[in-house]
Amino acid sequence: MTTDWHLARGYRYAGVHSGLRPDPNRLDLALVVSDSPASAAGVFTQNRVVAAPVHVCRERLPAVAARGVVICSGNANACTGQRGLDDARRMATVAAEALGCRPEQILVCSTGVIGRHLPMPVIEPGIRAAAAQLDGSAAALDRAAHAILTTDTCIKVATYPLQINGAEVRLTGFAKGAAMIGPNMATMLAFVLTDAAVAPADLARITQTAAAPSFNCVSVEGHTSTNDTLLFFANGRGAPLEGDVLARWSTAATEVCCDLAQAIARDAEGASHFVTIEVTGLRTEDEARCVAKAVAESALVKTALFGADPNWGRIVSAAGYADVAFEEKDLSLWLGETLLYQAGTPLPFDAAAVSAYLKGNRDLLLRLRFTLGAASCTFWTCDLTYDYVRLNAEYTT
Amino acid sequence: MTTDWHLARGYRYAGVHSGLRPDPNRLDLALVVSDSPASAAGVFTQNRVVAAPVHVCRERLPAVAARGVVICSGNANACTGQRGLDDARRMATVAAEALGCRPEQILVCSTGVIGRHLPMPVIEPGIRAAAAQLDGSAAALDRAAHAILTTDTCIKVATYPLQINGAEVRLTGFAKGAAMIGPNMATMLAFVLTDAAVAPADLARITQTAAAPSFNCVSVEGHTSTNDTLLFFANGRGAPLEGDVLARWSTAATEVCCDLAQAIARDAEGASHFVTIEVTGLRTEDEARCVAKAVAESALVKTALFGADPNWGRIVSAAGYADVAFEEKDLSLWLGETLLYQAGTPLPFDAAAVSAYLKGNRDLLLRLRFTLGAASCTFWTCDLTYDYVRLNAEYTT
Repeated sequence: MTTDWHLARGYRYAGVHSGLRPDPNRLDLALVVSDSPASAAGVFTQNRVVAAPVHVCRERLPAVAARGVVICSGNANACTGQRGLDDARRMATVAAEALGCRPEQILVCSTGVIGRHLPMPVIEPGIRAAAAQLDGSAAALDRAAHAILTTDTCIKVATYPLQINGAEVRLTGFAKGAAMIGPNMATMLAFVLTDAAVAPADLARITQTAAAPSFNCVSVEGHTSTNDTLLFFANGRGAPLEGDVLARWSTAATEVCCDLAQAIARDAEGASHFVTIEVTGLRTEDEARCVAKAVAESALVKTALFGADPNWGRIVSAAGYADVAFEEKDLSLWLGETLLYQAGTPLPFDAAAVSAYLKGNRDLLLRLRFTLGAASCTFWTCDLTYDYVRLNAEYTT
Repeated sequence: MTTDWHLARGYRYAGVHSGLRPDPNRLDLALVVSDSPASAAGVFTQNRVVAAPVHVCRERLPAVAARGVVICSGNANACTGQRGLDDARRMATVAAEALGCRPEQILVCSTGVIGRHLPMPVIEPGIRAAAAQLDGSAAALDRAAHAILTTDTCIKVATYPLQINGAEVRLTGFAKGAAMIGPNMATMLAFVLTDAAVAPADLARITQTAAAPSFNCVSVEGHTSTNDTLLFFANGRGAPLEGDVLARWSTAATEVCCDLAQAIARDAEGASHFVTIEVTGLRTEDEARCVAKAVAESALVKTALFGADPNWGRIVSAAGYADVAFEEKDLSLWLGETLLYQAGTPLPFDAAAVSAYLKGNRDLLLRLRFTLGAASCTFWTCDLTYDYVRLNAEYTT
C-alpha cells in the first residue's frame, strides 16, 4: 500500500485492539503522534448534534503546538451528554500522560454507534498500549488506518511527495467512511500529516479549501454524521511556507483529500458502482454542487444505476428539485458518452447500449451541462443496493 | 370501498385501457367530469423540471367554469419539450370535443416514466372511449381510481359528508402515489371533488391550506416529482360558502387530503412499516416540518426501522442536520412509548423490547419533543426495504 520513504517525516502511528469491539482480532483504537509540536487545524460536521470529541477538537483548534490525535472506532461518543464530554477529554489526557505533553496538545476522534457511553475501563489501557507501540513505519500507519474503520472494507491512505525549494516535503493522509456520508462534511474521519512548515492560520484556511472539493463533494446517502472530522497537522521546522510555494502545497493537500474522498465513495456500503457526477455551466460552484448533490442522493437515481436501468428522467427530475433556478432548455444530460437529453428535449437512444454501459462498468459518469454560467462541480457517489439495506438494517442488532 | 350515496353529487367517472400500457387488463386512462361548470384550483410540484400537463393546468387555474380532468398513467409526459406540451393540450381538446365544452375547461394530468412521448394514436381513442362510459357510480370512481395508479398496490379513495345549514354537502377524493414521493408536493396526483359551492379564490386558498399538513407532510424518499398535482373541483350552485361554514368545509377538505396522504405512505413501494413522526415544541411549524422531513428521508433511519434495529442515534443525528437551530439538551426522543433520549442524555433501555415493538407493529410512532416553542408537525413515511430497491432497480427495464 504505502512504503516508508513516501510518508511525511516526524510522525509515528499505532493501532491496537483495546476491547471496545468484541472481536479480539479487530483493531479499534489508533494513535497518531508528531515528534515535534505541529500546527494543526480542522473542519467538522455541520450537524447541530455534535459528538463529544468534535466539541473537544473545536476548543483546541487551530493549534500552534499540537502533538497528536487519539481515535477510537465502534462507538461515536455522540448524544452522550456531559459524561461523553468528560470521556473525550479523558482520552486526550491519558494519551498526553503517556506522551509527556499537555492534554490540550492532543486531539480526539470517535466513530461508530451513536448514543452509547465509551467503555473507559478498556479504552484507557488501550491508549497506553498504543503509546507504547508508536512507530513511524508504513506498517504502523496501516495498523492505525485499520483501527479507525467501521463498515469500511479497506483502509484509505494517500501520500504525496512535493519538491519545494529543492527539498522534498510530503503529505500523508488516511481516512475512514462508508456510510452516513453526506457533505458538510462527509461522515468520516480524515487525517492529513505533512512535514512542511505551515503557519496555523494558513493551515486553518487550507483545511477548509481542501475539504470543499473533496469531502464536501462526496455522498453515500446524504446523512450528515455527528462526528465528521478532518484534521491537518504540519510539523515542519523553519520559516512557514508562503506565496506560490504555499499555493503548491495547498494544491497537493487538496489532491490528497480528493483521493481519500473518492476512496470513501468507492468503498461505500454495499455499493456496486462508483459514480462521478460532473455538473458544468452554472452561475456559481455552490449551484453546481447543489445540483450534483441532489442527483447523488436520490434513492431513485441510485437504484436505477444499481439496476442498470437507463431511466434518465430521474436524474433530470432530481436536478429540478435542487433549489437551483433553471429552465429545461438550459440542461443537457449524458450517461457515459451517450447524450440522452439535449437542451430540454429527449433524444432517441439505444436503451440496450446504455444499459450495457451501466451493467458493464463499475465506474460510471453522469454529466449535466447547463448553459447559465462557467461554474462547475465534480461530485462522487455510489448506487443503492440490496447490500446497503442489509448492512444498515442489521447494524447494531 | 365507497358506496354511491356518500359521493359528491354531480360528478361522473370513467377508467379505461387505452393501450398506453401493454397489459390489456390494466386501466391507464381516467376521465372525471362535473356535470355543471365548477370552480377549480390546484397545487403543483415545486420541481424546476415540470411535466407538460402541469404547465397546462397552471395556465388554466384557478378556473370559474372547469368541466373536468383527463389523466393518463404509465407515462409522465415530462421532459418531452414542445411536443409534450402539444400532446397535453391535445388530450384536453379531445376530451372537450367529446363532452361538448371548450378545451380550456378541461385539465390534464399524467404520471409514469419521464422522458417519453405520449402515444397519442392510442390515447385519443382512449379519451373518447372514456367519455362514452362516464357514470356517477362508485364502481365508475373505482375504475378511474385504478386507471391513475402506477406502482400503487391499491386505490386511495376518501369521501366525507358534511352538514351545512341543514343540507348535506360531500367531498370525494382519490389519489395515486407510491414512490418518487417528496414533499412540495408529494409526488402524486390527487383530486378532490365537492358539491358545495366555493368561490374560485377561496378554493385556491383552501387547496394550499389542505395540501400543507397532508401532501406536504408525506415522503417516501424525498424525490420531488415533475408531475405532482392536487386538483379541487367545487360544482355547487347558489351562493358560495362563507365564514364559519367555509371554515368547516375547509377543515373537511384538509381531512380528506390527510387521509389520502396517509394512504400513499401506507402503500409506499416495498414498505413494511407505516411510520408517523410527531415533532413538537419548535418555534414554527416550518421548523417542525424540516426536522420531521430530515428524519423521514434518512436512508439510515429507514433501514434501521426495516431491520427492527433500535439504533436511535440515527434519528437524533438526522434531526441535527435539518438546518434547524437547537442544542442537544432541547431534544427528547420516544420510539413508540419508550423514552430513549431525554434532554440531550441517553437513557438505559430494553433494546429487545424496542426491537420487538419495531418488529411487531406495522404502524410505528417516532416522537421528537423540543423545548423551544409551541409549533408541531405530524409527518408520514415508510421504511426502506429490499423490495424498494428491487422495484426501483427494475422499473423501466
